[in-house]
Amino acid sequence: MQTRRFFILIQGEQERRFYTGCEKYSGMEEIMEKQDILKKVDHTLLAQTATWAEIRQVLDAAMRYGTASACIPAAYVRQAAEYVDGRLPVCTVIGFPNGYSTMAVKVSETRDAVANGAQEIDMVINVGFLKDRRYGEIEEEIRRVHEACGGRILKVIIETCLLTEEEKITMCEIVTKAGAEYIKTSTGFSTGGATPADVELLRTHVGKSVKVKAAGGISSFEDAEEMIRRGADRLGTSRLVKLMENEDSGEGYE
Amino acid sequence: MQTRRFFILIQGEQERRFYTGCEKYSGMEEIMEKQDILKKVDHTLLAQTATWAEIRQVLDAAMRYGTASACIPAAYVRQAAEYVDGRLPVCTVIGFPNGYSTMAVKVSETRDAVANGAQEIDMVINVGFLKDRRYGEIEEEIRRVHEACGGRILKVIIETCLLTEEEKITMCEIVTKAGAEYIKTSTGFSTGGATPADVELLRTHVGKSVKVKAAGGISSFEDAEEMIRRGADRLGTSRLVKLMENEDSGEGYE
Repeated sequence: MQTRRFFILIQGEQERRFYTGCEKYSGMEEIMEKQDILKKVDHTLLAQTATWAEIRQVLDAAMRYGTASACIPAAYVRQAAEYVDGRLPVCTVIGFPNGYSTMAVKVSETRDAVANGAQEIDMVINVGFLKDRRYGEIEEEIRRVHEACGGRILKVIIETCLLTEEEKITMCEIVTKAGAEYIKTSTGFSTGGATPADVELLRTHVGKSVKVKAAGGISSFEDAEEMIRRGADRLGTSRLVKLMENEDSGEGYE
Repeated sequence: MQTRRFFILIQGEQERRFYTGCEKYSGMEEIMEKQDILKKVDHTLLAQTATWAEIRQVLDAAMRYGTASACIPAAYVRQAAEYVDGRLPVCTVIGFPNGYSTMAVKVSETRDAVANGAQEIDMVINVGFLKDRRYGEIEEEIRRVHEACGGRILKVIIETCLLTEEEKITMCEIVTKAGAEYIKTSTGFSTGGATPADVELLRTHVGKSVKVKAAGGISSFEDAEEMIRRGADRLGTSRLVKLMENEDSGEGYE
């Protein structure tokens, strides 16, 4: 990995960016390095056409840059888990991206993924049921999928771009009650991705036990840093690792 | 239903359109009415936000216009099957739309759908595996899902817009060998839908036991008729029924 580093210094409303080698800065500062941001990234490849060679590249890059996990299709989880051999958590998706498979299927899908070596599970809620205020069924589904995770991390994708503010807040309450570890903004397959305002809204309304994952449309370290500042603990994106790879290969930023 | 009818007369390469009330036409003709076309339609609602009220409307319209089936999310199959009570085949989707869940999950998803009352199953192949030439696994998956269908109709979605011509032809052979009833062009969630050329290509290369379903982007009776002429036995669309409803309500064509 290249040694050039990316500092973000925040002082009240002010923010300045430095590169190592610039003048030193002292004061009440909060320093966020690229490496610290990458630790929060689920390096993601969920394209319908993804081949094993592409998945392997994602796994290699995720290990190289120390991301939180690699998030890949379920059909590759077993092969991926064998390949990384404990060096990287493998994350996969359940009921993805439309969320309208049955609870029974989401539960068996989760068990299958865990049996194949998944350590993190990103499930999609049934958005139609939310529109119909079938809250009890949504909570029960999250609870049952969480049980099927057997202690592994569950992130619940609510697809914010399709929800009203009231529905987003309702989902914060349901996810908290159901005991999932994360609420996640987006699949990346619908009409929009994470926004800083949504991340802040979710952060404000989930319980203390629940973290926020921002996903969809995060394409720069500036985006990432903004999401983290608004309350995101995880970021679903492929762009940040790609930026690092381009930088390391001398291609610079795209 | 309105009594105005839509005739399509085909004579060799020639084709003429008449409405009842126009001059009579006699000769070697093949007459295709709107009703005949609607009998080949899987009236489809697979939006992520679909509510029960919207699903019920689709079921009502499908029964009213005599479509082949209604194709809806798995989470609504049980409720839909109870609602239509044998008057309409309920179709649902498996591994949809990305096709990269595991074979075990697609099989259990199919069993669950059948247990809930689905009479037709539209599954998506693993496109990444096709790119990697993992033909044996793709065939085995179709075969296993077909077994899980227990005699009900299986349609295999190959997502033509992502495939080379060679891959499309390979899938015709695999679907034929695996014993599915239909090959289907598209999910409607990728970069493109059915084209007349693809329908003809599939029709040419599948075995005689396999029919072709065209889906994605069919928005008029002219489109539908073209697909049927090129070899489609089924059409996945919501537009044709909507056109009928608009016509019946006096709103005319959109």
